Formats: sequence, structure tokens, C-alpha cells
Amino acid sequence: MGAQTVTQSEVRGKAVKAQQAARRLALATTAEKDAALRSMAEALLDGADRILQANAADVERAEAAGTSKALLDRLRLNRDRIQGMVEGLEQIIGLADPVGEVVRMWRRPNGLQVGQVRTPIGVIAMIYESRPNVTVDASGLCLKAGNAVILRGGSDAIESNRALAGILREAIASAGLPADAVQLIENTDRAAAEELMRLNGLVDLLIPRGGAGLIKRVMETATIPVVETGVGNCHAYVDASADLDMAERIVLNGKVQRPGVCNALETLLVHQAVAERSLPRMVQVLREHGVEIRGCERTRRIVPDVAAATEEDWETEYLDLILAVRVVDSLDEALDHIARYGTRHSETIITQGYAEARRFQAEVDAAAVYVNASTRFTDGFAFGFGAEIGISTQKLHARGPMGLPELTTTKYVVSGDGQIRG
Amino acid sequence: MGAQTVTQSEVRGKAVKAQQAARRLALATTAEKDAALRSMAEALLDGADRILQANAADVERAEAAGTSKALLDRLRLNRDRIQGMVEGLEQIIGLADPVGEVVRMWRRPNGLQVGQVRTPIGVIAMIYESRPNVTVDASGLCLKAGNAVILRGGSDAIESNRALAGILREAIASAGLPADAVQLIENTDRAAAEELMRLNGLVDLLIPRGGAGLIKRVMETATIPVVETGVGNCHAYVDASADLDMAERIVLNGKVQRPGVCNALETLLVHQAVAERSLPRMVQVLREHGVEIRGCERTRRIVPDVAAATEEDWETEYLDLILAVRVVDSLDEALDHIARYGTRHSETIITQGYAEARRFQAEVDAAAVYVNASTRFTDGFAFGFGAEIGISTQKLHARGPMGLPELTTTKYVVSGDGQIRG
Repeated sequence: MGAQTVTQSEVRGKAVKAQQAARRLALATTAEKDAALRSMAEALLDGADRILQANAADVERAEAAGTSKALLDRLRLNRDRIQGMVEGLEQIIGLADPVGEVVRMWRRPNGLQVGQVRTPIGVIAMIYESRPNVTVDASGLCLKAGNAVILRGGSDAIESNRALAGILREAIASAGLPADAVQLIENTDRAAAEELMRLNGLVDLLIPRGGAGLIKRVMETATIPVVETGVGNCHAYVDASADLDMAERIVLNGKVQRPGVCNALETLLVHQAVAERSLPRMVQVLREHGVEIRGCERTRRIVPDVAAATEEDWETEYLDLILAVRVVDSLDEALDHIARYGTRHSETIITQGYAEARRFQAEVDAAAVYVNASTRFTDGFAFGFGAEIGISTQKLHARGPMGLPELTTTKYVVSGDGQIRG
Repeated sequence: MGAQTVTQSEVRGKAVKAQQAARRLALATTAEKDAALRSMAEALLDGADRILQANAADVERAEAAGTSKALLDRLRLNRDRIQGMVEGLEQIIGLADPVGEVVRMWRRPNGLQVGQVRTPIGVIAMIYESRPNVTVDASGLCLKAGNAVILRGGSDAIESNRALAGILREAIASAGLPADAVQLIENTDRAAAEELMRLNGLVDLLIPRGGAGLIKRVMETATIPVVETGVGNCHAYVDASADLDMAERIVLNGKVQRPGVCNALETLLVHQAVAERSLPRMVQVLREHGVEIRGCERTRRIVPDVAAATEEDWETEYLDLILAVRVVDSLDEALDHIARYGTRHSETIITQGYAEARRFQAEVDAAAVYVNASTRFTDGFAFGFGAEIGISTQKLHARGPMGLPELTTTKYVVSGDGQIRG
């Protein structure tokens, strides 16, 4: 038996177990699921030493491999971060259980009663590169929505993930639900991930979380249903009638408050009527916050020491302290730019004009379209969902921040008394 | 320039045009869309001769190729069938426009108003083998929901589809909306379909309609989001407490009323307590309607002249006058059988027991789960949606019959007065 065979049996074997667990979880009451979540939270606290020890091994290995400081910081756990995971689980306990909600129900002329009822999806796979806390967040959210989860984290965090998943599984079992509700794929080879992406009939949904490269590979390889997440080339358009102080605050917030995330600002579009008044100060303030500016011809005529933006700049999600700036003639030109280069994540207009606000919200095709607010609000916490498992940038199933209801599907439950079709 | 290049330019070129049209359609008012639908209906009547002439060419070619009578009947158009298409469009005019519906709206503590608003999906591709009427139905439904459609029908119907699409495009343009809202891919090579399946960034949703082979090929090849439709290995379970007369009517209706469709019955499961009383008469009545029975060991002991069912029978969607029959010991065994062999389309229990009805509806994982009614009701018309574009058997986005709302997505529209994230 070669390595390939072992890989297949791990991935497929765990998926089969997850599917069995999902049948039980689908019938679990809210009380049973909340008890399991509470047990998971307590077990993380009790197991803190075991987690930190495993994490130290990951960090040591990463340091030896010359990993960057930023990545080491993402990987490293401490008691505060474990406490953060515990609080995340406690928040999930507080969220309403979406399963069993009757979305609508009606009676047909022949007396058939048709109800659309919210149910778990079944088995959800996550492929992620992010911090080890995704292991806990995803397990908690999937469990509350009645789903089993298959976790495939990055090789950097494998020891941490093994410790976390082990503790969560024991805690779920001790609360009377199946440990197999949480499955960690320990093989971090690409082949194992690709096998997971093709488990039609065993995995009902795959959510990738990570960089553009990972997302693209998943979209090209997966044959199971996928929700695309994350990539955000977000724009702010400062209209001719904008309050320029407000514009400055919103642009600054969008770019510098947390530049490495998908809802951060990447391109600023400014109406030509206010470009001369607003751009010099805006650029100055951004630079004071360490932002590099890359501008179009007209931007460079107004602020001469700005580097020239290329076609590539309009297309790029920097995830860094860099901002592309373009002066446009009109709202139409701004809308065209966004339609061409935007990734349909989050877009904002700063305007005092009713017609402009209305047109922007109607015509921009994106998960979240803002008037006079920062794009940084696009997430499950800021929207008030209490938690999120990712931000969908596709149009199917879910769009924008995905909370618990987005981890469910529905079924039609039809009750009759002998009706047949004529 | 070889054939490959020409193929690519047709598919991609039409997708680009569809995407441009979709931007305009997304903003069309209900009145504009209904006027276009009315224009389409009138144009079909006015163009009946042109349609029938084109269809005659398809039929002649199919006859020369030795096509079966059943397929010829599906292909052949006449004035009645054109009238049927016209009535389909008139029904769509009568349906509520889903676009612009505010699904929910709330205010955040910081004053941000967040609304979830229904919007068109954008560009929807259909790959189908079915009758030419799909060309008209899909165009009408997609247009009413504000989407452009790319149609890729079978080679058998290419002349008919070319005439229909041409007429629809002219009618849409004459009503003031873009003709490019309807695109017919005239290249019926497999390569053209596969190119369409991989147009990420241009096509937002692909709905395949056809046999299991087509669906499977699409699921394996497509990199754009797909809604899987159609395959239905549906079961009826006759419980120990069933009203046996009712059971007989429901089983007969499920199997013989229209055996070639996805919601027809394929396997009958009977509780052992009523097997001896019900099976002999049930088999007799089914046989009187031309149904071939393939039974398990216990079935064959009760009705000796029944052929033996194999493992393959439990897995097969016959789409024909054949029924697999199995005697089970309990509801649990019936649930296990359905979980193992069902395709999650439509399942029914016939029972007088409250607990059994409740368990069946809770535990069966399918798009539609019935108590005391025929599985044949799973479609958009029978559910009262007024129309349907297909029946989703996947759990993402839409499950079960898909009407107009399932041809839309949502976006979050956020209105503020300068809010930034702290």
C-alpha cells in the first residue's frame, strides 16, 4: 500500500464517519447542541497546556523554516487567544438555532400542506490556511447548525490543529453527541486536499478560506459544491457632492484600520470636480499613516510626487498599505471602473446627492454596497450576526457575511391525506 | 484560425454580450420586463410558420438518422405546442417580480441601516437536451428575474432553437430591452459546452437539464457555480399502519402517471406486517398498468412470479414502467434504505401513525418529503410557484422546484452618515 492509498483512506474514511455523525446531528435538539458547545469551551480551558505545548512545536518548526514575523504571529497561541476561542463558542451558544425554522408554509387547493423547513446541510468541509482559531470557530458554527465538519488546515499549524480537534472531539462525545462530528484531515499534502474537493456524495459543501491562490485552486479542482469566499478589491468613490471631511475619514478607515483583510479599501475613485480640493490633503493624511499612493495621470498632475498606477494596480487586492487612486469624470465612469475591476465584495460611495446614492446602491453589483460608510463593516460581527464562517463573494446560496442560517439548507415537508396527481 | 478558435470566440463573445445586457436588465422595471415578455409571446404567434419550418428540418434530419419515436415526439412542434409556449410566457407575466424585494432590513447600534435586497443573478447558462420549449421557458423566466440567459440546446433541435431564439431576441429589442438578453450557442460540439462550463467571471450560474450522463459531465467539468438538477430515485414506504387502499393509489400514481419524469416512483418499501396483505393486490394492479416488478427475496416469497431485484435495482432510476419492491422489518430499515440508495429528491411514507409520520419527515434527507401523498407533486406548478426552471437536488442555493426567486441572489445595501470601524 503506497502513500496515495493511505491518503485516500484517511480522507474518504473520515468523510464516511462525518456523514454518519451528520445523520445524528441533524436530529439533535438545540439543548443537546448547546451542551456540546459548553463542553467544548470547558475542554479548551482544561486543555490549555496541551494546546500550548502543541502550538510551541508548530512555532518552533516555523521559526526554523524562516517563517516571517507576521505569519508567526498568526500561528502563535497564548492563554488570551485560547480565551478568545472559548468566548467565540459562548457567543455561538447564545445564537438562535436555525434548524427547524419554518421559512414558509401554505396549503394547496387540493388540501396538500407544503412547508419549507430549515435543515442542516450535512457535511461541510473547510480548507484553510488561517490561524488555528478557525479550527474551533468552524467546529462550533457547524455543530450549532447541525452539520458535521471536515477540517483541512495548513501544515504550519498541524500540531495545534491536532490538539484542538482532539480536545473538541472528546468534549462532544462526553456531551453525548458523536465525536465524529469533527474530523481533522492530518495529511497536509495537496493530494489529500484535492481528494476532499472531489468527494461528491460524501461532502455537501466546501468552504475555502485563504489567499487568492487557494481559492482559485479550489474553484478549478472541486467537483463538490463550493462557496467562494474572500477576495476583495474594494473601492471608495468620492462623488462631486461629497462631504470631504467624511470622505477622508472613510477612506482612511478603509485603508489603514486593518489593511490585510478582504473588506479593506484598495482603490480610491474621485470625481474630477472635487479632485483638486480633496486629493492633496487626502494623500498627505494617508501618507502620514504609512500608505503608498499609486495614481492615474490626473492624480499625478494634482499631487506630483505620486507613483504612476498601471493597469495591474486597478486589478490588485494589495492587502497592504498601498492605495490606487483615479480621478473620474462622472459617477458613470466610477460605476464602469467598479464593474470592470471590482471583485463584487464591498464598494462605497461618499455623496450628499440622493440620486447618486440611489444609483450607486442600485447599479453596483457587489455583496455589500455602502453609502457614506466604511467598507470595513462587511463582516458577520459588524452586521450583527454574532459570528461568521466566511464572506461569500459568489452569488449562489449566500452572498456576503455567512452566519448560522447560511450553514443550513431547506427541505419541503408535504403533508397529505391520500392526494395523487391527476 | 482553426475550428477551436472559432468555437471559443462564439461562446466567449456571446457571454460578454450577455454580461453587458445583464447590467441593463438588472435595472429594468417590472413594466419593461412584462412588456418584453408580451412582445415575445406575440412574436411567437406571428412567427409560427418560421418556427414550424425550422422544426420540420430538425424532424426530417432526426428521422433520417433513425431517431426513436419517443424522441421524435419530444422534438416535434405544432401550433398547439407553440400556443403552449405562449401561455407559459403569459403565466410568467402574471408572476410577482422578485427583484427589489427587501428580504430583511435592520439598524445597527451605530446607526448603520443594513438591508438585504433581492437582485438578479446576472448571466445564467442552461445546457439542455430536452424539448425546444425549454428555449422559450428559460428565456422568459430568466428575463422576468432580470437575468441574461445563454442557451445551449441539443444538436437535434438546433434549427428550431435558432428560429425560436431569433424571434425572442427581435421581440425583446422591439420592446426596448437588449436583444443580447437571450444568447443561443449555435455550436453544438461538446467543446463549446465545455468552454461554457468554465467561463468564470462571465457566467454566474449554470443549470444543466437532461439525463444523468449530462448532469454528471457538468458536475465534473464545470468550474462555474452549478445547480444540480433532476436525478430522482424516489421511494414510497408503506408503513405497518398504512391505509392500504390509499397506499395502492399513491404507489400506482407515483409509478404510472408519468413514469419518465424525475419525481416518479422507482422503489416500493413495504413493512413486513402488511406485506402479505398488500403486496399481492398491489403487484396485480401495477401489472395491469404494464409495470414490471423486481422484488427482494421476501417479496418473491409472497408473490412468487416476481423477478429477483439485484443491488443495481435499488440504485436505478428506471424512468420506465419498472418498480423495485423490498419488504423491510421496520421504519428504521426503510430510513436506512432511503439514506443509502435515495438521490435526495422525493420520498413518501404512507402511514396512519403520528410518530412514524413525524420521524419520516424529520429524518429523511430529501428535497421533498411526503406523508400520505404522491411523490409526483414535486414540481413548481404543483407547489403553486406558477413556473419552474428545474428541480434542484443539491443543498446549496436552492433545493427542490426552482421558481423565480431561485433565479435571484441578494445584496446588502448599507446606508450610513459617515460611520467608520473602530
